[in-house]
Amino acid sequence: MNSFADRLIDAVARLDNPTVLGLDPMLEYIPDDLLAQAAAGSPTPAGAAAKAIFAFNRRLIDAVADIIPAVKLQSAYYELYGHHGVEAFALTAEYAQSRGLLAIADCKRNDIGSTAEAYATAYLGRTRFPEGFSTAMFDMDAITVNPYLGIDGVEPFVRLCEQEGKGIFILVRTSNPSAVDFQDLHLDSGESLYERVADRVTVWGRGLVGRSGYSSVGAVVGATWPDQAMHLRERMPGVLFLVPGYGTQGATAADVCASFDADGRGAIVNASRSLMCAYRRVEGGTKDGFEEACRTEALHMRDDIRTALDQCGKIRHMRPEGS
Amino acid sequence: MNSFADRLIDAVARLDNPTVLGLDPMLEYIPDDLLAQAAAGSPTPAGAAAKAIFAFNRRLIDAVADIIPAVKLQSAYYELYGHHGVEAFALTAEYAQSRGLLAIADCKRNDIGSTAEAYATAYLGRTRFPEGFSTAMFDMDAITVNPYLGIDGVEPFVRLCEQEGKGIFILVRTSNPSAVDFQDLHLDSGESLYERVADRVTVWGRGLVGRSGYSSVGAVVGATWPDQAMHLRERMPGVLFLVPGYGTQGATAADVCASFDADGRGAIVNASRSLMCAYRRVEGGTKDGFEEACRTEALHMRDDIRTALDQCGKIRHMRPEGS
Repeated sequence: MNSFADRLIDAVARLDNPTVLGLDPMLEYIPDDLLAQAAAGSPTPAGAAAKAIFAFNRRLIDAVADIIPAVKLQSAYYELYGHHGVEAFALTAEYAQSRGLLAIADCKRNDIGSTAEAYATAYLGRTRFPEGFSTAMFDMDAITVNPYLGIDGVEPFVRLCEQEGKGIFILVRTSNPSAVDFQDLHLDSGESLYERVADRVTVWGRGLVGRSGYSSVGAVVGATWPDQAMHLRERMPGVLFLVPGYGTQGATAADVCASFDADGRGAIVNASRSLMCAYRRVEGGTKDGFEEACRTEALHMRDDIRTALDQCGKIRHMRPEGS
Repeated sequence: MNSFADRLIDAVARLDNPTVLGLDPMLEYIPDDLLAQAAAGSPTPAGAAAKAIFAFNRRLIDAVADIIPAVKLQSAYYELYGHHGVEAFALTAEYAQSRGLLAIADCKRNDIGSTAEAYATAYLGRTRFPEGFSTAMFDMDAITVNPYLGIDGVEPFVRLCEQEGKGIFILVRTSNPSAVDFQDLHLDSGESLYERVADRVTVWGRGLVGRSGYSSVGAVVGATWPDQAMHLRERMPGVLFLVPGYGTQGATAADVCASFDADGRGAIVNASRSLMCAYRRVEGGTKDGFEEACRTEALHMRDDIRTALDQCGKIRHMRPEGS
């Protein structure tokens, strides 16, 4: 079984594109005809919303499936529509995987050991039933995890990464302004909290390094803080970075480069609103053109990152021909 | 509109019981006849599981509704059954509320501001639809929140606490062994990380103190660490504590006392497995007697905490007659 890290690194190399399409759908992004179609067959507003979201996501995935290696689903935007939304979350992940993309659940789950075990099973493993069989429930390729509870709450995820070829990304330095509130606090040992978390994440993932040289225990490192990202890149060898913050949150391709290793590997860059709502940036564009606008913007983002990596001297790792 | 803290304090006083029934259901706890009934009408194993869980929860709620003021639903055990499980989560909360109990979502959600806004809306607020109306989706009375991202990720919840009379409990010192990994780290300012978090939580909640003298921005403080709990109780005046760890996790009623103020108010104590699976402690008991066993154990737990509070000199706050 290939590890998550190896599958992801291969997919990025094959497309020569480290972009992740963030699927954080809001109803206001969706064209009226899709909303109307979804409403026609749905007895409840939440059911209609979930249907519209899945239809919208499917078209976005179709628009970029040949150029983007992975999608990231932010669970909050699905939970907003109750269990209907959660069904759209699961269907979207399944559809992305059917089109050959990796699906990352951005759920930031965290709890004590026994409960973390239940979360890990739900998202990465197989739920057992009394009759003796088990079924994968969300069957994501990877999930984001919050480290505040320590190793107890992370270990069940790590175990399933190993057993099922899945991955996790642990929050280290997030992209939001108040990341400084706790993550930047200085410890009496001289380092900051996020550095301590970074060191633990690096150690926790050591047993899961694949043939790519990267571990399936990755880190979330916001692109909006390039100095910290550059520092963490050096401090966390072999750790894959999931990098939010490009686009609408304000980070540029040059900012993003800090998260890549010298050979142009080791990071994936998420963009959500800037891709989903790319139609807003097209002159005279309307929601009806969202698919072409998303594809055009995705190609632009890919080329933007390629150019920036070239300019900062990080040689992009291309997969050998025919492999 | 009464604040969440006031509603909770009133309910605890009315029943003279600070116990919370934790509903973290696993299929192995549920009697065979409930499982069989649920399976009969369900096309999928996950659908059957969710139905059985809701039926089990409903009976547990009925068994204690006149003696316990609140339930806490641990979302992981529902997500384990996909969107079917999430529907059982919502139905359980609604049923508990219909029986007069407060419903706390133990979801430990956390994210950057815009996403935290979506989570807060889903659990505490009202989801808006394009047609112009809005509907409460999960409509919980309170939710647990992880603080690692700082105030950005907490503020949307605080805003809804104020607008909708809801509450949050922010993780400060959790009940698990590896709480020490990060929460206990010493900062260069001399305090520990959890003390810094505690101080921020106290400040964040200052605007939401109700007539009870308690804020609707509360804290999660594990009972398994009574020294830290006693220290935090002094450090966080006016902050309600949600206390996990009693029962199966090992904390005793004496340990739990540390989290209460001198007048016997200021904390609620969760027990999940020890109540749901109380039948295991009954001699010759089987799953079929789970309701009576839960009620008996709940009365025992109430009296156990009452006695411990009396013994440690914390006078229990009784509601005035007729109020």
